[in-house]
Amino acid sequence: MSANIFFERKGPYSIKDLFNLNNSKNFKIKDIKTLDKATKTDLSFFDSIRYKDFALRTKAGCCITSSKLENYLPKECIKIVVKNVLFELAKTTKKFYPSADIDYPDLSLSKPKLSKFSKVKFGNNVLIGKNVKLGNNSIIGSNTIIEHNVSIGKNCIIGSQVILKNSIIGDNVVIQDGCKIGLKGFGFIPLKTENLKFPHIGKVIIKNKVELGASCTIDRGSIDDTIIEDNTYLDNQVHVAHNVKIGKNCMIAGQVGFAGSSTIGDNVSIGGQAGVSGHLQIGNNVKIGGGSGVVKDILDNTVVMGYPAVPLKEFLKKGKNSE
Amino acid sequence: MSANIFFERKGPYSIKDLFNLNNSKNFKIKDIKTLDKATKTDLSFFDSIRYKDFALRTKAGCCITSSKLENYLPKECIKIVVKNVLFELAKTTKKFYPSADIDYPDLSLSKPKLSKFSKVKFGNNVLIGKNVKLGNNSIIGSNTIIEHNVSIGKNCIIGSQVILKNSIIGDNVVIQDGCKIGLKGFGFIPLKTENLKFPHIGKVIIKNKVELGASCTIDRGSIDDTIIEDNTYLDNQVHVAHNVKIGKNCMIAGQVGFAGSSTIGDNVSIGGQAGVSGHLQIGNNVKIGGGSGVVKDILDNTVVMGYPAVPLKEFLKKGKNSE
Amino acid sequence: MSANIFFERKGPYSIKDLFNLNNSKNFKIKDIKTLDKATKTDLSFFDSIRYKDFALRTKAGCCITSSKLENYLPKECIKIVVKNVLFELAKTTKKFYPSADIDYPDLSLSKPKLSKFSKVKFGNNVLIGKNVKLGNNSIIGSNTIIEHNVSIGKNCIIGSQVILKNSIIGDNVVIQDGCKIGLKGFGFIPLKTENLKFPHIGKVIIKNKVELGASCTIDRGSIDDTIIEDNTYLDNQVHVAHNVKIGKNCMIAGQVGFAGSSTIGDNVSIGGQAGVSGHLQIGNNVKIGGGSGVVKDILDNTVVMGYPAVPLKEFLKKGKNSE
Repeated sequence: MSANIFFERKGPYSIKDLFNLNNSKNFKIKDIKTLDKATKTDLSFFDSIRYKDFALRTKAGCCITSSKLENYLPKECIKIVVKNVLFELAKTTKKFYPSADIDYPDLSLSKPKLSKFSKVKFGNNVLIGKNVKLGNNSIIGSNTIIEHNVSIGKNCIIGSQVILKNSIIGDNVVIQDGCKIGLKGFGFIPLKTENLKFPHIGKVIIKNKVELGASCTIDRGSIDDTIIEDNTYLDNQVHVAHNVKIGKNCMIAGQVGFAGSSTIGDNVSIGGQAGVSGHLQIGNNVKIGGGSGVVKDILDNTVVMGYPAVPLKEFLKKGKNSE
Repeated sequence: MSANIFFERKGPYSIKDLFNLNNSKNFKIKDIKTLDKATKTDLSFFDSIRYKDFALRTKAGCCITSSKLENYLPKECIKIVVKNVLFELAKTTKKFYPSADIDYPDLSLSKPKLSKFSKVKFGNNVLIGKNVKLGNNSIIGSNTIIEHNVSIGKNCIIGSQVILKNSIIGDNVVIQDGCKIGLKGFGFIPLKTENLKFPHIGKVIIKNKVELGASCTIDRGSIDDTIIEDNTYLDNQVHVAHNVKIGKNCMIAGQVGFAGSSTIGDNVSIGGQAGVSGHLQIGNNVKIGGGSGVVKDILDNTVVMGYPAVPLKEFLKKGKNSE
Repeated sequence: MSANIFFERKGPYSIKDLFNLNNSKNFKIKDIKTLDKATKTDLSFFDSIRYKDFALRTKAGCCITSSKLENYLPKECIKIVVKNVLFELAKTTKKFYPSADIDYPDLSLSKPKLSKFSKVKFGNNVLIGKNVKLGNNSIIGSNTIIEHNVSIGKNCIIGSQVILKNSIIGDNVVIQDGCKIGLKGFGFIPLKTENLKFPHIGKVIIKNKVELGASCTIDRGSIDDTIIEDNTYLDNQVHVAHNVKIGKNCMIAGQVGFAGSSTIGDNVSIGGQAGVSGHLQIGNNVKIGGGSGVVKDILDNTVVMGYPAVPLKEFLKKGKNSE
């Protein structure tokens, strides 16, 4: 039922046509999903031991993986064993979603029809795509672009010169001027003469009461979604890469950057200009000092600082030792 | 006389109505100001020993503070002693200024009337709010938005896709494309189910001959103003938080970030991607190396580097010792 | 033949008129170029021993330099020996190019004529300057501004709310929303009462198959050009200063910053939030860890990390020693 409302999907394709397999029963693949969300008509992928627990329990009908990892997958899941999982995944995803690897500007934009949005206030020159939903009492600032199928809840304040695409926004959300939300993330397979762009078929989900500062960039997910949970506030110029999940009640200061696919717990506070590397798990109630560079998972209730970030005590001790 | 031209103020409110006090004479509070600017009809706040000198000399009629700090305030100043000064201040400020805690897009924008601005040149689709003042020989780039009551001096070059609100700009100022100036800063009281947004009733003041690079964000002050003095130049993507004061003749390189309420002296140069924490005093003629993280006050004429930033000699020695 | 298509040039000026010389033959200077590109009717400049090899071989007719460096220049090159090379250069460049020191918004913009660009697709409110060239099958997003004389190749996808000026873009380039390309860089001579703005007469050259993430800023060159070679990808919020050259097949992650005039080789990958200081040479196949601060040249095939960035082995050892 959860059809992709932002990207046109081709297929289904038979597994034999896709992968030229002869050791497995044939069946039709309908969609591509992450290990935890895939069902038996979906293709998934498993390319890092970090996701072992999801692999063990996946319901995916088939899964692209490597020879090292294939044994973690359930018996009934058909394994597509390849050398470069992401390369194979990118190629296959492009077959299902041929236009998700580049952000083609929405050419269906037009001025909002006031009859359709009688309880919404608009600044000047707002542009709205097809099937956009805007909740009552929301206000949209001037020169803002909301592309097709984006949904915005009630009582939201969207600033001016904002771009929203491939996004689902909750209620009582504030997005300040200049934010770019839902764009394709930085995903590609590097190739010498021409990189293979990774299709980004996910979306951005911003929950209720979130506030985003000016000129933030929040990329949509590649296969998964990028999510910001309730009551989390971001300051100006924050960069949130594809597939990042940020929990509830977080405070993210200015110019912080999140690399792809990291998960941030609830009640996390992060000081200005800190960076969080990709594919990390940051626990609940974590505090990350300004300017820190986080390169490892962080347990709940930890205060870290430094580059690379270490628990505060260790950071202070290091400073002493090198004096 | 210095009425707030950007935000509608309610009141005056009697001190008894606001705080439910019974140990003090009643009187009417007209406005909310910082310790150094408050007069006897104003409410102020004092929440950190850093501001002791201002507290000792304040003329504020009453002041929200904590039991630890109240004794620094003059006898004749009525103390409102609370556990969480900023929480009380936010609530009270919201009573006086009910619409300063969210950047509601200006819905009064329209194309500039050429009869009113006959000595100004405009690009295409410029949008101007009510009571905007634009000096002679200034040029405003395309798609730029200047909200109500903003004032821009003579001979200014404002780029394209800029947003200016709650700001007073001097003469001969250059603001490059994409800057967002005068927005609400990152101020709120974190609460579990819904943060309390701190009203920002201050403005941005940019003095003469300042140059701002592309895509800078400069937030307005919360109670105070954010100020950039004469002949200071900022490179691209610089983030200046609320209440920051930057002196004259400074050079701020790309992607530098200033947390809230810091004061930077004159002739300061800051290398790219450096960060300055909140509530600091940076002296005159200071040089801060690129990538540094400044977490302490810095005296005049000092060269600092590192994370945390230390005097250059110390930084070089540290590097040696850890080899 | 390579006239400057973006900035009007005055002159030629006789060398005697420009510099008040009496020890040299008089002749007419037509243009100002870097040491490697200047010919005998051009003025050049030589202000750092880093550029010694270019000085030895320059064909410039005359050259502004210092007494320390003048002996590296060929005999037949007339030396203009001054105390502050860049100050003299800025003043002289301003005589040749009086309007390159400020980004005056292009006031010749208009809606694209569909008859002229029949094979290009446009979003809403696109603004195009005079003599803009747009290749077949390119798409330009809404609210995007392309100033006079910019050239964009075939099959390019330019996002929405982009600004392009003083730029030459190749084929199959993707530029995501909010990028500001070709603006004046952060160059000026600091002076107490009013800085002297350095004219920027260079351009931005982006080669084929490049992809730029959202909200990047890429400044044009001062005397030279800023160049990004084939198949290089930048993530969001990257800052590329004036005169930077980035080679082929590079991967530059989010919020990376390049100070001016550095040269980056081919196949270089740079992690998020790293910074590269000015005037450096980064070799081919270099890997720079996220958050690193590069302050020295880096040889080919090196992996570096840290602040200041050192080879990975050294970085790990340092971490050990300070424990």
